[in-house]
Amino acid sequence: MTARPPDRPSVRPSAVVLLSGGLDSATTLALAKAEGFEPVALSFRYGQRHVGELAAARAVAAQLGVTRHEVAELDLRAMGGSALTADIAVPLDRPEREMAAGIPVTYVPARNTIFLAYALGWCEVLGAEHIFIGVNAVDYSGYPDCRPEFIRAFETLANLATKAGVEGRSRFRIHTPLIALSKAEIIRRGLALGVDYALTRSCYNPDAAGTSCGRCDACAIRLRGFAEAGVPDPVKYVE
Amino acid sequence: MTARPPDRPSVRPSAVVLLSGGLDSATTLALAKAEGFEPVALSFRYGQRHVGELAAARAVAAQLGVTRHEVAELDLRAMGGSALTADIAVPLDRPEREMAAGIPVTYVPARNTIFLAYALGWCEVLGAEHIFIGVNAVDYSGYPDCRPEFIRAFETLANLATKAGVEGRSRFRIHTPLIALSKAEIIRRGLALGVDYALTRSCYNPDAAGTSCGRCDACAIRLRGFAEAGVPDPVKYVE
Repeated sequence: MTARPPDRPSVRPSAVVLLSGGLDSATTLALAKAEGFEPVALSFRYGQRHVGELAAARAVAAQLGVTRHEVAELDLRAMGGSALTADIAVPLDRPEREMAAGIPVTYVPARNTIFLAYALGWCEVLGAEHIFIGVNAVDYSGYPDCRPEFIRAFETLANLATKAGVEGRSRFRIHTPLIALSKAEIIRRGLALGVDYALTRSCYNPDAAGTSCGRCDACAIRLRGFAEAGVPDPVKYVE
Repeated sequence: MTARPPDRPSVRPSAVVLLSGGLDSATTLALAKAEGFEPVALSFRYGQRHVGELAAARAVAAQLGVTRHEVAELDLRAMGGSALTADIAVPLDRPEREMAAGIPVTYVPARNTIFLAYALGWCEVLGAEHIFIGVNAVDYSGYPDCRPEFIRAFETLANLATKAGVEGRSRFRIHTPLIALSKAEIIRRGLALGVDYALTRSCYNPDAAGTSCGRCDACAIRLRGFAEAGVPDPVKYVE
């Protein structure tokens, strides 16, 4: 799961980067480029309540100069069960201890498994071997599919699931360059690579104009990260 | 991967069955019911050229009396790369040896991984633990994601990927009741359970009216199965 650049530079895509429009995936895309990969970006219109995420993803992809950005249609609303896709209230102003304790209502069942599976299929079609996902096991808010053991299991699966893996043409690898970083470290690395965080969106609970609430778990973790990094968050928050 | 019925009968769904509208998944659904599960059925509109599959899936779900059948939108066309979703010719009249030798152009990259991941998410929302998929390693036409080692790897992943798995509330299991059966055995079991195979569709290359070609790999395997089972195939073929 450590990143390794491809043997030779090429204009052919060598990596698929999952891009949500948030701070973590924007940084992941910048890191993939910095490590010498030729990335394409993949986002999903999955029934999320906050489609402002997709506008952010497009802006980030453009700023970081990827050759291709696909937004795949994938309706997760039919299954329900999450505050991000169904009409369930997002909790606000939770103390840090409470955020760390359990898996929140914003968990979308099997979301990263579905996203990685789609990225794997696209990788195989492109002849690429590398998938980047901005999961994080430090400030991860308790999601099971952000843990290293999940990522390792998916990597094993990927090489059994595909024609390219079975025929020995490809050895798929899942890269998680943020997995052991604090939010402050992620922000510092991204700034050093020129990520414009003003383009990113993290809030689970924006207002009608798309302004971040500053009170949900995602905003709280983001604001603490910028504070610890000693730089202002360029995103606007509701007064 | 052997089926085990739930401890007590319930009207709450206990299993998600992947239903394509083909012969194998129809039989799988009948077997899940026969084993005492309360199944719901899951199909995908994934950009397949032959949407007649979905009408078949609906007819099969109705005939076998499931309480719920969802058709999830999932666009795999964006990734391309398969004769089932892109404009690539389906091979016809292939000798049996050739069919057995390699992975065909009808392979859709990572399709079963994506389908199983979606089924897993729905299972978790429903509070169900069992996923049924009609993969077959005998007449499987060379698909990597139909092999037992792939299924085992997915089962491992499923229990690491989910809130219910991590919290120990669920132990997800992937059931593959057809995996070691010949096509003739599948047909015999389905007939014994009352499956109406006239409702199913297997052809990769139907004409405009939806009539099966009788010449693609899927038709060839199906026709041989009915011949070996000693019963006529109730589906119509192009003269």
